[in-house]
Amino acid sequence: MRTDERSYDQLREVTIEPNYIKHAEGSVLISVGDTKVICTASIEDKVPPFMRGQGKGWVTAEYSMLPRATETRNAREAARGKIGGRTMEIQRLIGRALRSVVDLDRLGERTIWIDCDVIQADGGTRTSAITGAFVALILALEKLLLQKKLEKLPVKDFLAATSVGILPDGQAALDLCYEEDSKATVDMNIVMTGSGQFVELQGTGEEHPFSKEQLHSLLGLGEKGIHELIDIQKQTLGMIVERIGEQ
Amino acid sequence: MRTDERSYDQLREVTIEPNYIKHAEGSVLISVGDTKVICTASIEDKVPPFMRGQGKGWVTAEYSMLPRATETRNAREAARGKIGGRTMEIQRLIGRALRSVVDLDRLGERTIWIDCDVIQADGGTRTSAITGAFVALILALEKLLLQKKLEKLPVKDFLAATSVGILPDGQAALDLCYEEDSKATVDMNIVMTGSGQFVELQGTGEEHPFSKEQLHSLLGLGEKGIHELIDIQKQTLGMIVERIGEQ
Amino acid sequence: MRTDERSYDQLREVTIEPNYIKHAEGSVLISVGDTKVICTASIEDKVPPFMRGQGKGWVTAEYSMLPRATETRNAREAARGKIGGRTMEIQRLIGRALRSVVDLDRLGERTIWIDCDVIQADGGTRTSAITGAFVALILALEKLLLQKKLEKLPVKDFLAATSVGILPDGQAALDLCYEEDSKATVDMNIVMTGSGQFVELQGTGEEHPFSKEQLHSLLGLGEKGIHELIDIQKQTLGMIVERIGEQ
Amino acid sequence: MRTDERSYDQLREVTIEPNYIKHAEGSVLISVGDTKVICTASIEDKVPPFMRGQGKGWVTAEYSMLPRATETRNAREAARGKIGGRTMEIQRLIGRALRSVVDLDRLGERTIWIDCDVIQADGGTRTSAITGAFVALILALEKLLLQKKLEKLPVKDFLAATSVGILPDGQAALDLCYEEDSKATVDMNIVMTGSGQFVELQGTGEEHPFSKEQLHSLLGLGEKGIHELIDIQKQTLGMIVERIGEQ
Amino acid sequence: MRTDERSYDQLREVTIEPNYIKHAEGSVLISVGDTKVICTASIEDKVPPFMRGQGKGWVTAEYSMLPRATETRNAREAARGKIGGRTMEIQRLIGRALRSVVDLDRLGERTIWIDCDVIQADGGTRTSAITGAFVALILALEKLLLQKKLEKLPVKDFLAATSVGILPDGQAALDLCYEEDSKATVDMNIVMTGSGQFVELQGTGEEHPFSKEQLHSLLGLGEKGIHELIDIQKQTLGMIVERIGEQ
Amino acid sequence: MRTDERSYDQLREVTIEPNYIKHAEGSVLISVGDTKVICTASIEDKVPPFMRGQGKGWVTAEYSMLPRATETRNAREAARGKIGGRTMEIQRLIGRALRSVVDLDRLGERTIWIDCDVIQADGGTRTSAITGAFVALILALEKLLLQKKLEKLPVKDFLAATSVGILPDGQAALDLCYEEDSKATVDMNIVMTGSGQFVELQGTGEEHPFSKEQLHSLLGLGEKGIHELIDIQKQTLGMIVERIGEQ
Repeated sequence: MRTDERSYDQLREVTIEPNYIKHAEGSVLISVGDTKVICTASIEDKVPPFMRGQGKGWVTAEYSMLPRATETRNAREAARGKIGGRTMEIQRLIGRALRSVVDLDRLGERTIWIDCDVIQADGGTRTSAITGAFVALILALEKLLLQKKLEKLPVKDFLAATSVGILPDGQAALDLCYEEDSKATVDMNIVMTGSGQFVELQGTGEEHPFSKEQLHSLLGLGEKGIHELIDIQKQTLGMIVERIGEQ
Repeated sequence: MRTDERSYDQLREVTIEPNYIKHAEGSVLISVGDTKVICTASIEDKVPPFMRGQGKGWVTAEYSMLPRATETRNAREAARGKIGGRTMEIQRLIGRALRSVVDLDRLGERTIWIDCDVIQADGGTRTSAITGAFVALILALEKLLLQKKLEKLPVKDFLAATSVGILPDGQAALDLCYEEDSKATVDMNIVMTGSGQFVELQGTGEEHPFSKEQLHSLLGLGEKGIHELIDIQKQTLGMIVERIGEQ
Repeated sequence: MRTDERSYDQLREVTIEPNYIKHAEGSVLISVGDTKVICTASIEDKVPPFMRGQGKGWVTAEYSMLPRATETRNAREAARGKIGGRTMEIQRLIGRALRSVVDLDRLGERTIWIDCDVIQADGGTRTSAITGAFVALILALEKLLLQKKLEKLPVKDFLAATSVGILPDGQAALDLCYEEDSKATVDMNIVMTGSGQFVELQGTGEEHPFSKEQLHSLLGLGEKGIHELIDIQKQTLGMIVERIGEQ
Repeated sequence: MRTDERSYDQLREVTIEPNYIKHAEGSVLISVGDTKVICTASIEDKVPPFMRGQGKGWVTAEYSMLPRATETRNAREAARGKIGGRTMEIQRLIGRALRSVVDLDRLGERTIWIDCDVIQADGGTRTSAITGAFVALILALEKLLLQKKLEKLPVKDFLAATSVGILPDGQAALDLCYEEDSKATVDMNIVMTGSGQFVELQGTGEEHPFSKEQLHSLLGLGEKGIHELIDIQKQTLGMIVERIGEQ
Repeated sequence: MRTDERSYDQLREVTIEPNYIKHAEGSVLISVGDTKVICTASIEDKVPPFMRGQGKGWVTAEYSMLPRATETRNAREAARGKIGGRTMEIQRLIGRALRSVVDLDRLGERTIWIDCDVIQADGGTRTSAITGAFVALILALEKLLLQKKLEKLPVKDFLAATSVGILPDGQAALDLCYEEDSKATVDMNIVMTGSGQFVELQGTGEEHPFSKEQLHSLLGLGEKGIHELIDIQKQTLGMIVERIGEQ
Repeated sequence: MRTDERSYDQLREVTIEPNYIKHAEGSVLISVGDTKVICTASIEDKVPPFMRGQGKGWVTAEYSMLPRATETRNAREAARGKIGGRTMEIQRLIGRALRSVVDLDRLGERTIWIDCDVIQADGGTRTSAITGAFVALILALEKLLLQKKLEKLPVKDFLAATSVGILPDGQAALDLCYEEDSKATVDMNIVMTGSGQFVELQGTGEEHPFSKEQLHSLLGLGEKGIHELIDIQKQTLGMIVERIGEQ
């Protein structure tokens, strides 16, 4: 049995509270077990210099943790004067993942800024951030539809993410909490679309390299979890769901 | 009448949710109208180099805003690589204010780190942060009492803060929201103890200098507001309240 | 008696040497006792990006100390690669204070850069900087009048600043030197106009909170000191004095 | 056919020149087609603070490109004053990959610094860096054996890396050059041990998500390429090869 | 005798390998004994802001060492987040030296970026960088001639550099290797044109001040060495040599 | 004739005001024409990490300009967050120059911090800084003699510096003011001891390379100027002069 009595293929309890921050065009508070992330989507009517004049849009992401989101306090990156490697890696991942399902041509010359701020951490913060940010993104784009700035929702498919890993006893497990994650010999983050295609696959066996068979089990668990996460996204989003993937 | 139909000497609705973050020794979510701040207090069993070996403790504070706490998105200070002047000023103010009511000699060689993270901003973020941080601080110190690491609560008095200002029509008002604050000709932050003494007084008349009479009105409003805020702190804290100021 | 045998309501000896730096449009060396600050005012024919196209001017200030202005050498902020919180707080204060008496609309799209460099420090550096910078500012604006770039002096009133505080024996005192300042239980900086209105009031009782009565005494001392400082500014400035406040 | 007339499962020409830099304990110049990377391994007789006193060693990596390694000149990270996200991601990957085959317990309290400097880039710089750095690492550890500082080679298995991807025509291909890489719809880096286990798997389908079948083809190509790279490593290393994996 | 058995007026073995980096407009690998520097020249079709609209070109240089170019590993400047004083001094010297022989008016509004990256260091890295960079610069400008973007080579004269010094035994010596350089009492870098004029002369006697007579000997040795270095440059460059100094 | 009617071998008016800053162990205000530099020498009873435990002392220097020391305002290096190349070069030069005449073995494990802050600039700031800093250094060391912390003055010889250059008309000139310096085709800084030996020689002919004959004229002028500067240093220092060079 797992530390929190879940079965190996079971997600933690997931809730997504929409419109959590009043100023943002789109926002959610996503909770995956004790991991809590505020995700906002902000619309800016211009694109970065390297994109100008192409008539295309851009999606970019930033990620941070409050100093006391974790068991022991972490110094702020602003106080240290620079962003750490882990943060950079995560914010690049979130941006890349969301761009994969947004039709940038149809978005127009706009930037969607995604901000993911972890207020409480218990493992899986980057995958929770992606799952929540997708909902915030849809809510922000819905505003553009309502304001007639866009005719169609420029989103090709659903998108969610989860983590899987191999526990010290060799068992593959879905949605690791921090305690499991810190002991896992293999750790993998999977980002997948609604149609079950891979967008990102990042597996690391720093403690133990892993075999093709183990990879296969991990992918199966991830697919199951992401299917369930997308169901929760759909319940949160309501009617707009039907316009995702519309040609 | 004020934009939100309050009378000039009326606070916005204030709530303080204790133990908001599970990992922190003390934490609250304070809401003052639409201003929401997560305040945590973290205990570290050492003091900064300039304090070592004196047997005394230290209290220090950090303050930040999520990028989309405000109407338009603000770039993160971590991304810009440095902390701005406004943030520095605020975190120095919060630290100084809390230290004024903590008996550092009785705290022992410990540092209390106060983190105030504004998740939604609508004026008065620094004063809300102080009012909330005082509660988080007491909750953290209560843990030390329960663990028998301290015998008495090393806190001399209650502490809360509010803002007052002079509106464009010349009217003095209590607890300005962002819309009022951005138009006020005079802006003043007051930090006061439970016994009605001043800890900090920061008044600025950049638009209009102010007279001694106006100063008098502003101090009266501030005193009333802080009295009410301390009542709310007491309701949140429960029994421990009786040990504040204990010799 | 005070350490330097002054009475409690007595300023230190104050001198203001105008045109101290040949390149600057306006400059002074102000000495307040052993505190010596070089203040320059530089005119730039453009405004910062956030002000452009409004036809208005801007006044901004920077403050620094030479490493050996103080009893023990302080590392340079340039060497540390960042400006400290104290410096930021002071330069924001100086800029805000001077803007309060400048008519930015009548200044035209120009920036006045105020630089205050403390070459020797003995308490009261920020208030001396404001008092000296006001004179440097007038000298620089006088040049614009002589060059017919301005028709009237865009300055609404005189401006000076001093510090007051409560000494360990409970006595309120004017213009604290470093030795007094480091022991004072309450420390307050007051910036006031020629007509006796408050521009800034910053009081801190980190060691001891203070009562309304104490506040009243401090304000009285500050008012007396600022009145005397403005007399010294007038002696330094000569004829141009008559054009301050001209409609 | 591919742009350089290779078949889809063919590596570019690979050479590894050992002992390329005279001062380093271990060094190579690895060329994979036109991609050239200088890899050095430096031994330091202490470990980072977070590892001290555990009797274990550490392996860490840094990666950089000369400004003109690429078709257009890139500004130096030193000149910009910070390390970019891509660089951080790569150097974390290289360090993690090498640590996975080093027996840190048997290394003793030493740090191996791996430096990978790309002097000419044509795709696959991070995987070439890992493949070359493994050889530099072994050469450095061989010195410790010769100096009798170690009794056995603390390396559990061989390690090499390559990139695979899906070209715009849907074809999976091994070891992409820059021109192919910039057009690929899916891009994957694979790090594998001599016994064919995965150490890292990083696949990204930013342009096109990918299916399980495509993943399968990519893994097959990667496995073939890594097998060949390890053969080249063995030829470079000579006799010491027999001591890898020794218990 | 010298540590490497050279006579006191003898250069180390010098080779210059042209076109070392395929992407750069001009590039060499210069070896002076065990000192090896990759020099590239990159052409950018614009000039820095302070030069715009004058119809003139610019030449600027950057210099760096790989971390393990030296006997013990040096931390990267990118990792430390700033460029050290020694590096700044060297890159300013290289840029100034090359500009002295380039006719910036005839270059047109272009910047030539010179990058000198030391891959192995054994004394004399800055002078080797200048000598190599001159060749890379000519190769890059030759491309502009071939592309008919320039009609004449905008280079007034040859340019090379060497170091000379006074060894502990009082003997003046040419082209110091690291071991000699670290013990020398006087160290001098000389940059000279093909016609034997001085472009830069930087002598330092931190250990021992030096007399006019010693200066005379050092200048003689430098002149001899630079004459020989220019001969090697000519052999590397081939036919283009005739167009240097053309009016 | 020169712009200020001096003859070509004439220094500007030089004054050195000792003990200019009350807190510093040694200090002067040196004026060389309109160039004014505050030089302080601060004694710290420890040495930098790389010197510890050798029983030797260290001398290090920092240099800065007030923003309005120059005709147009320069941004502060602290505000830009880094020290520029020119500043680094100058402070390295000042430190090296002073160390050349200090007997570090006899200084004991102390650091002398030299701070040179230019309050008004008109050419020759670095050489004026060296000439002034030497006096500040002696004044600080004299304090150590008086306190019996040193028995002898650990200074081997006098030290001063000046600039020389070749004006556009080909004429060599001593002690260039800013206007001359900005037009000179050759610019040279010379640091020399009381016994007429060279400590530093830095000549640059960016506009025009220079011949051996020109070098000879420049050195002659420099020698004359430095001789006169050392006479002024002697007048400032009084009796302590006799102890310089004492064995």
